[in-house]
Amino acid sequence: MAAWGQRLAGVRGVLLDISGVLFDGAEGSGVPIAGSVEAVARLKRSRLKVRFCTNESQKSLGDLVRLLQQLGFDISEGEVTAPAPATCLILKERGLRPYLLIHDGIRSEFDQIDTSNPNCVVIADAGESFSYQNMNKAFQVLMELENPVLISLGKGRYYKETSGLMLDVGAYVKALEYACGIEAEVVGKPSPEYFKSALQEMGLEAHQAVMIGDDIVGDVGGAQQCGMRALQVRTGKFRKISPEFTASPPLFC
Amino acid sequence: MAAWGQRLAGVRGVLLDISGVLFDGAEGSGVPIAGSVEAVARLKRSRLKVRFCTNESQKSLGDLVRLLQQLGFDISEGEVTAPAPATCLILKERGLRPYLLIHDGIRSEFDQIDTSNPNCVVIADAGESFSYQNMNKAFQVLMELENPVLISLGKGRYYKETSGLMLDVGAYVKALEYACGIEAEVVGKPSPEYFKSALQEMGLEAHQAVMIGDDIVGDVGGAQQCGMRALQVRTGKFRKISPEFTASPPLFC
Repeated sequence: MAAWGQRLAGVRGVLLDISGVLFDGAEGSGVPIAGSVEAVARLKRSRLKVRFCTNESQKSLGDLVRLLQQLGFDISEGEVTAPAPATCLILKERGLRPYLLIHDGIRSEFDQIDTSNPNCVVIADAGESFSYQNMNKAFQVLMELENPVLISLGKGRYYKETSGLMLDVGAYVKALEYACGIEAEVVGKPSPEYFKSALQEMGLEAHQAVMIGDDIVGDVGGAQQCGMRALQVRTGKFRKISPEFTASPPLFC
Repeated sequence: MAAWGQRLAGVRGVLLDISGVLFDGAEGSGVPIAGSVEAVARLKRSRLKVRFCTNESQKSLGDLVRLLQQLGFDISEGEVTAPAPATCLILKERGLRPYLLIHDGIRSEFDQIDTSNPNCVVIADAGESFSYQNMNKAFQVLMELENPVLISLGKGRYYKETSGLMLDVGAYVKALEYACGIEAEVVGKPSPEYFKSALQEMGLEAHQAVMIGDDIVGDVGGAQQCGMRALQVRTGKFRKISPEFTASPPLFC
């Protein structure tokens, strides 16, 4: 395999996943991953542009950034690309009124959205709110629609908290897709629009950037399909190589 | 289309789905579908053999049959093919100790099964017990296993209660399959073993039997793939024709 310098030649910016890369979450809190606070600080001192790219959908952007700052990270809201604000834009543009199958922690992001008489479902990592009752309500809303629209904030299979692996939104998306015979629209990683938006914020082309994440599908696969390079860390949800999900082998660090 | 006599030529036995065909369920109870009590009585007075074929997994076989008897149906436990007893046989034969993601109403069927230190997951229509916590526990059990085994009692997308359409076990199976990267083993309709077992109980060959159900996949598709004829009723969960799921067009009645 080529040397690091060669593999990263021409890179001018770094996109960093947050959960599993910077920290492992826990109920309302989290623990920094060893070395990550200093790694972010070093990146920021370098000539590289840095952007934080998350599918976080249990906390509002404000709460997430406050938590990371408390953990010692040099980060601000303007440096983060997250799926909830993008979802709100889509809802407004298309006149969609969602049934929100989401975590209470992120509900404030949708304060300005009309949720009366729903004509779509928005699903995010709802955690304990993934009750049978809530899932069934989402299912019934979709089945009543002539053209059912299901918008998902990410499609992760699972993530890691300090207590262990946790089911992510992707599993519940598959459940609704199967029950209703539909396909969800994904906002967030690995959708190409998500990565393009992050690159635009950085003023970079895909070939000038490298994505660093712990998710072989959402981070590595998604970035590679946009023409970016990608590194998979061995922290967070990392368990083993799953090359079937990627366009080309990830680089490990 | 050929006349009824021609389409049903040579039929010597009828397999009847229960939920959505004989009755629509409700919380702990149910309502007979108009004409179904009399239809069963007429079938039993005819020369045709009759067997009841259900994926019911919220009630024990005893409770289900008692309910149907109270609703006026001529039915006994020995006439019903249900997935829970078949599942117990499989668990014992293969030395499997399940984590049971099931409804409390059917837990008694697994009284004789060792559930310590689980080495597989059994999933059934758990209803309200499909909490995030229970789903996550099933997920974690599967992810800890070198060879994860997920056994599902049916794979229905949804069923109908008097209050409306309800998410069925199949949706939650898809969720775990996606999260764990595995494929479930289905016990119950539409698995060929299920239909073969029912035919064996009736002493009939597939070409001598017709399956009557409201599920285009579980009832109609499954029976057709076993070489049986199938009729889809327009009651229960019936909504519209979904021919993509069937080997050949179902007959409607």
